[in-house]
Amino acid sequence: MIVDLTDDEARAALPLKWGTVEPGVVPGWVAEMDYALAPPLVDALTAAVARGTTGYPPFGDGGIGAAFAAYAGRHWSWQPPEDATAVVGDVIGGIRLAIETLCPPGPVVVPLPCYPPFRDIVALTGRELVTVEVDPDAEDAALDLGAVEDAFRAGARTLLLCNPHNPLGRVASRTELADLAALAERYDARVVADEIHGPLVLPGATFTPYLSVDPRGILVTSPSKTFNTAGLHTAHVTALDPADQARLRGVPLPQNHAYSPLGMLAARVAWTDCDAWNAALVARLDDQRRLLTRLLADRFPAARMRPLQATYLAWLDLRAYAVDDPAAAALAHGVRLSPGGDYHQGLTGHVRMNVATSPERLGLMVDRLAAALG
Amino acid sequence: MIVDLTDDEARAALPLKWGTVEPGVVPGWVAEMDYALAPPLVDALTAAVARGTTGYPPFGDGGIGAAFAAYAGRHWSWQPPEDATAVVGDVIGGIRLAIETLCPPGPVVVPLPCYPPFRDIVALTGRELVTVEVDPDAEDAALDLGAVEDAFRAGARTLLLCNPHNPLGRVASRTELADLAALAERYDARVVADEIHGPLVLPGATFTPYLSVDPRGILVTSPSKTFNTAGLHTAHVTALDPADQARLRGVPLPQNHAYSPLGMLAARVAWTDCDAWNAALVARLDDQRRLLTRLLADRFPAARMRPLQATYLAWLDLRAYAVDDPAAAALAHGVRLSPGGDYHQGLTGHVRMNVATSPERLGLMVDRLAAALG
Ligand SMILES: Cc1ncc(COP(=O)(O)O)c(C=O)c1O
Ligand SMILES: Cc1ncc(COP(=O)(O)O)c(C=O)c1O
Repeated sequence: MIVDLTDDEARAALPLKWGTVEPGVVPGWVAEMDYALAPPLVDALTAAVARGTTGYPPFGDGGIGAAFAAYAGRHWSWQPPEDATAVVGDVIGGIRLAIETLCPPGPVVVPLPCYPPFRDIVALTGRELVTVEVDPDAEDAALDLGAVEDAFRAGARTLLLCNPHNPLGRVASRTELADLAALAERYDARVVADEIHGPLVLPGATFTPYLSVDPRGILVTSPSKTFNTAGLHTAHVTALDPADQARLRGVPLPQNHAYSPLGMLAARVAWTDCDAWNAALVARLDDQRRLLTRLLADRFPAARMRPLQATYLAWLDLRAYAVDDPAAAALAHGVRLSPGGDYHQGLTGHVRMNVATSPERLGLMVDRLAAALG
Repeated sequence: MIVDLTDDEARAALPLKWGTVEPGVVPGWVAEMDYALAPPLVDALTAAVARGTTGYPPFGDGGIGAAFAAYAGRHWSWQPPEDATAVVGDVIGGIRLAIETLCPPGPVVVPLPCYPPFRDIVALTGRELVTVEVDPDAEDAALDLGAVEDAFRAGARTLLLCNPHNPLGRVASRTELADLAALAERYDARVVADEIHGPLVLPGATFTPYLSVDPRGILVTSPSKTFNTAGLHTAHVTALDPADQARLRGVPLPQNHAYSPLGMLAARVAWTDCDAWNAALVARLDDQRRLLTRLLADRFPAARMRPLQATYLAWLDLRAYAVDDPAAAALAHGVRLSPGGDYHQGLTGHVRMNVATSPERLGLMVDRLAAALG
């Protein structure tokens, strides 16, 4: 059911991931997958183009709130009200909108490592950034709640949670999330939960929607990472308080206008008609994870990989190989990985590897990385 | 070559324009056209969906700067350098980016009436709004340069120019634009020119690209209004100074990330392969303009229509009929028009009518408006 794109097909389909590397280089960087789109999406989008649905999106959520609630109910046994969701152009734009409209003034806590635009977003909202770091030597990469409490005590009133975590691949437990929720409530702070990787939880881990433990939380998500549709520009923000919903919906158009009718259609179809494809994808990613674990044990006995509980982004600690920037070394050997320092400034010896490709290409990536680390 | 959509087709294609009116009501409000897409766009988009081009857009402008420069050269005998253009998600986002990155601090002048998001954008940038009004009784709706100079003298440093003008349908002369440019230079102010309606100049008028008279001007445009592709989210900003170009391109991703690969493709195809369709559209709009002029003379002898030199948006002064809100009255009679007060707060007795539909529907709109004004 998961169809691998050939190199030529991938180069035509994914101009960012593939168009930025020389022919012959294997791109294992930006979070896109080298797989053909889910057939229900191709069918729906093809029909929409034939109809000419390229103009302005409709008012309202186009049924996305209901479709997402049903998906969440089926997959996570948690179901937000169908009318709790507002459409936005993308997850990052949704986080910005959430901060600007729903979060009290005060610094914003961003745990590190993080998806790099998290930092930019805080800067764009004009708020102060407070980082809380995961020690790269920690056995478990859990959020340091003591450090979060210090930040709240010092005045921070927002925390950007990424769960499942990019780039750590980690899924937070219900208990951890409940502890964070209790802390946020105590300090009147709000948690903005980016759960874009929620549908990519792999066998062995259990995903807990943050709003199921914190009704004051703000959820931002999209099917775009699971279904390779980031370029269609539709994501959504869910808040349980009707006053918050009204605030999100009440902003002037130019503050929230980046969503598209094709993206809205794709979101509804993805949350409704693509469970089988989603399951096949998770099975494939589980295989890729197993293959990577085996290859690493074989070729990089001293490498340390954070347990890949979710996402297709493996976080590799290669410090044992004493190369400051393994991504740069790897690029010189024909594989483009993401430098760890992009996610945690100053961190050396780490890379993020995108495993959502064919087993062959994953093998090539590891071979070339091995050559690079000599 | 211009294919009219049936009501059912239009309702399926244009969820905002048609989905917000009851069946039977003719929608003559938001600026979308009831015509099938240009065939080269349908072909290109269909192939792109089949390839799976739904992921992140490429770095760079995807050839749009060159395609637009060639279009401008063919149509307006003016050709910006091919590398002077940066891609943005939409015109309104491009205006915001232009203000935030290129325009000196200080109030922003917005001539009234205006496309309503112009006001919101100024508010979102945190700048003060200064309006300059066109007197609804003025014979010619030219920009009041005396009032603009007063605003500059009082500290304003940016002016948002809309040319061709929505909702006035007016095309500014080269002399007027040169005078504005001289004024801007004198006060070190910058003009942001929204020229989205440039390809919709009708026979009898001549379009002057603002940057052809003011190399310090900032152009924001998109093929989206001419080709009904606003929902694909791609527009572009052109600045002639390489330092400005670098500033536009240097913003962090989340400040300019709303464009899409399908929109970039559509923009390149629209500027390159759609001249014949564009010409057929202009011929059709010329016919619609003639029909409207005749119908008005027939049914509304006391109505005053600003000369429709460009756009498919007619600005009607119906004050002679002594109905404060003719759009509300029209809606009750089965036609949705845009209230004049949306463009110029407090202005009564005006409507904007979208004529980009079939001759039959245009006839219905006028009939129903006549019934409404009784
Ligand atoms: C955690 C996280 N959030 C957001 C995004 C991007 O989402 P969007 O393109 O909708 O802003 C990504 C992309 O990789 C991501 O990993
Ligand atoms: C003058 C003007 N600018 C901008 C726009 C909208 O452009 P966008 O959807 O790209 O922001 C319109 C739409 O009607 C318009 O008339």
